Amino acid sequence: MTTVSEQTQHSLIAGRSVPGTGGTTRAVDPALGAPTGPEFTLLGDDQVAAATRAADEAFAAYRRITPEARAAFLDTAAERVGRAGEEIVAVAMRETGLPEARLRGELARTVNQLRLFAGVVRAGDHHGVRIESALPDRTPVPRPDLRQRTLPLGPVAVFGASNFPLAFSVAGGDTASALAAGCPVVFKAHNAHPATSLIVGRALSDAVAEHGLPGGVFSLLFGRGTGVGQVLVADPRIRAVGFTGSRGGGTALMATAAAREVPIPVYAEMSSVNPVFVLPSAASGDRDALADGFVTSLNGSAGQLCTAPGLLFVPRGADGDDLVARVADRLAAATGPTMLTPGICSSRLEGEKRLAAAAGVSAVGHGRAGEGENAPAPAVYATDAATFAGTPELSEEVFGAVCLVVRYGSADLLPSLAEGMEGQLTATLHLDFEADEDVRELLDALELRAGRILVNGWPTGVDVGDAMVHGGPFPATSDGRSTSVGAAAIERFLRPVVYQNLPAALRPEPVREDNPWNLTRRVDGAYVVAERGENA
Amino acid sequence: MTTVSEQTQHSLIAGRSVPGTGGTTRAVDPALGAPTGPEFTLLGDDQVAAATRAADEAFAAYRRITPEARAAFLDTAAERVGRAGEEIVAVAMRETGLPEARLRGELARTVNQLRLFAGVVRAGDHHGVRIESALPDRTPVPRPDLRQRTLPLGPVAVFGASNFPLAFSVAGGDTASALAAGCPVVFKAHNAHPATSLIVGRALSDAVAEHGLPGGVFSLLFGRGTGVGQVLVADPRIRAVGFTGSRGGGTALMATAAAREVPIPVYAEMSSVNPVFVLPSAASGDRDALADGFVTSLNGSAGQLCTAPGLLFVPRGADGDDLVARVADRLAAATGPTMLTPGICSSRLEGEKRLAAAAGVSAVGHGRAGEGENAPAPAVYATDAATFAGTPELSEEVFGAVCLVVRYGSADLLPSLAEGMEGQLTATLHLDFEADEDVRELLDALELRAGRILVNGWPTGVDVGDAMVHGGPFPATSDGRSTSVGAAAIERFLRPVVYQNLPAALRPEPVREDNPWNLTRRVDGAYVVAERGENA
Repeated sequence: MTTVSEQTQHSLIAGRSVPGTGGTTRAVDPALGAPTGPEFTLLGDDQVAAATRAADEAFAAYRRITPEARAAFLDTAAERVGRAGEEIVAVAMRETGLPEARLRGELARTVNQLRLFAGVVRAGDHHGVRIESALPDRTPVPRPDLRQRTLPLGPVAVFGASNFPLAFSVAGGDTASALAAGCPVVFKAHNAHPATSLIVGRALSDAVAEHGLPGGVFSLLFGRGTGVGQVLVADPRIRAVGFTGSRGGGTALMATAAAREVPIPVYAEMSSVNPVFVLPSAASGDRDALADGFVTSLNGSAGQLCTAPGLLFVPRGADGDDLVARVADRLAAATGPTMLTPGICSSRLEGEKRLAAAAGVSAVGHGRAGEGENAPAPAVYATDAATFAGTPELSEEVFGAVCLVVRYGSADLLPSLAEGMEGQLTATLHLDFEADEDVRELLDALELRAGRILVNGWPTGVDVGDAMVHGGPFPATSDGRSTSVGAAAIERFLRPVVYQNLPAALRPEPVREDNPWNLTRRVDGAYVVAERGENA
Repeated sequence: MTTVSEQTQHSLIAGRSVPGTGGTTRAVDPALGAPTGPEFTLLGDDQVAAATRAADEAFAAYRRITPEARAAFLDTAAERVGRAGEEIVAVAMRETGLPEARLRGELARTVNQLRLFAGVVRAGDHHGVRIESALPDRTPVPRPDLRQRTLPLGPVAVFGASNFPLAFSVAGGDTASALAAGCPVVFKAHNAHPATSLIVGRALSDAVAEHGLPGGVFSLLFGRGTGVGQVLVADPRIRAVGFTGSRGGGTALMATAAAREVPIPVYAEMSSVNPVFVLPSAASGDRDALADGFVTSLNGSAGQLCTAPGLLFVPRGADGDDLVARVADRLAAATGPTMLTPGICSSRLEGEKRLAAAAGVSAVGHGRAGEGENAPAPAVYATDAATFAGTPELSEEVFGAVCLVVRYGSADLLPSLAEGMEGQLTATLHLDFEADEDVRELLDALELRAGRILVNGWPTGVDVGDAMVHGGPFPATSDGRSTSVGAAAIERFLRPVVYQNLPAALRPEPVREDNPWNLTRRVDGAYVVAERGENA
């Protein structure tokens, strides 16, 4: 059992507990507005290099272990995180205010993610092998033997998110995909949930030790984001960054990464208002279900989800009026859950205040405030399409259960409204397929601005599998060319290399003629698919 | 025929000839050191937006034409460039000083590249389709129907290279791969070969018109790199940048792209010294062939190739001494070809002067200067491993036929020398397979620092096909996660999007159930390979 005692706790660098010299912190139970759990020391800026050096040293060995060894390590990590699940959920409830059911779901997702990436490693498609056989008789020049594969980038810095203490934190998606790629991880914990982070961090460190891997494969750092976080990203041994958080935090890391002597990629997931478009055909349909689904999606986790619906486009007219009235009804019956931290709660209240005060914006309704501290009432406001189009600030994310309804006159206006939007993680359409509504133009505009397009659903709840995209153009993410959720997330931490006329004896396994890892490969431009046994 | 008359010539914006307001330029025949060809007007900074606007407008239609329409357009472009080949070669010889055979080879490569990407478009693997079928009975939550595919990023700014007036210029690799991805191209010509650029640009524009595509699919701009080039990269309608040139030029564009309100990817290929390691087993082998291959690779195109060998590691001792002596012999018989421009020639002479004056560096030998202006003698210098390791400036690229031989004592030192190096496009090993030389540690170090590893060959000459990687860690390129040559280059200009529960009637072709484009797709995590007919 990995109980976090009431003694002062420390960072975990390459498996060793390292007291920090940069002061201390304690978590706050947001429902009580009072400290909870032990004191945690924070690293000084000059202590970061111990972790990056260990990661860099570990990289040499870790990148070359067999797929089965790497997958087994990820499976063990999953098992150990799962085994600590009761304590993780109990501690996380205190540190985050999130309800038990949500945290149990997030725990299961975190464990499943680690197992998903174990499967990705075993299947090996990420090696991206392309082989072109030598053509000695080709004219005017012979073709050499060319064998391309991917390599991991090197140590990755990952930043924990406040709003997903498990699935986007210590053993979350960025960590799992980086480890799967062969990259050691130096993890900067979010100070809102240090004990949760430490329990999960110990599970990972124990998995590293159990598999006899170098300790530097994983480190967990406590420190200030503006200090230790910046030092970490500036460290020359770090080769890529994964981040989930605010636009300000993400763009600060992007600037640091771009200013390095050797710039590195930053995968920051930052900001999205996740517009939902209710087409006239849907507004004339089951409005009860729409209102219900919307308020549930908005208020779940107190709206503290990257994909929470912050904009709802509703047609003018009787159907739309009725839908908005039903939203107000449902909302009135909804209670605001406790938010993650007092700071997040106050930002959300300020954001709502700005929205409420904006010209042309009126209140649709409020829910009830939750019990205890930091549980504001969910809120919905409304404006018209012209005001929305003319007021860019109305498109800014308010992180929390606050949504703006935009009433539009004709659906023909929607494509141009969509074209005025910044990059989004998701965009949603509600429509009646049978009504023969032409939404192609709207779809065209949205797919250029979002990573995921949903129809007749709600954007919260991200399925973790082979086909998911959790990404999107800036500012939804720093780099819309990738996803941070799902199997393809591994590709963020890889780069290609090609071997020309490398003798057979020196070829790495992925490009060997006998294909010992049984990979699907491209040979002379065509896929040669691996036979999968029962274990695959 | 598309002859460039002696009249003043202009930029080609969306098919129209547009006189520039930013002054004029003329090419210089480097062999004569005198102007050649007509005057070209340069665009003013405020004229750039006409091209980016046209590109942005063209994007909506161009991204959605069928694969066959896009491939046929690329085939026509190839045909038209090929048809203008005689004139292109004649004009390029005058503007670049490159010999006819080299330019004929480069022309063929350029035509073949366009055809390669037509094939890539027809095969369609770049759509990256991943489908997960709905699982309505999955617990705890059903799985939605998820269909991922890629989309083009939008208009791409491409910068012409001085050293490849055809293959890395107007209709070169960046243009071909961006057009193949579905991105309109705004091309900034290199002012060293404007007439060559204009002939090729007309061929592309004519192909655009012949296929009834919007003119904005391709524009050719003449302007100053520091003005028009920067304005182009800062333009919000531009979504990605392709560049081949100097480290200073590339990093300036990176800074501009990072400082935009919406940052964009920059694919800059910049700087590489392409180390070649002659292992003791090779030094004791056919030294004549080694010396011959080396001098040919170094002196070809006056060393003005991104992959020219700038560092040659040779063992100390009698074998190495003899190899260096043979290099000096071959070199003495070699004549320096005309360089591309007077400016490049003077930079190269300065670079050689710095190298010659460096402490611990001595001359191995020189070739003969070529006839006419700007044809300096190829030059080889030598130093020892300790001096090399202690003097970072000795690793800096001198663009031209200048190489530094590094004499090493033991092959055991080579991995640590390699580890001290910056990112490279290529790294080469010469060894005798039979001698059972253990080079794994050296290979490990090199593959982390280079995009291409060659054995017993020379790095110049890049095969354009499915498996090539022409890239590498910074500063070889701005972004080592990609290649600028070969089929995979298309991936630089794409991003993924996923459709969740999109009704069948609204699904784009790549993700339709009946797979009308006959794509290889991942379905529920496994490849389903398309049957290829005779046309594929």
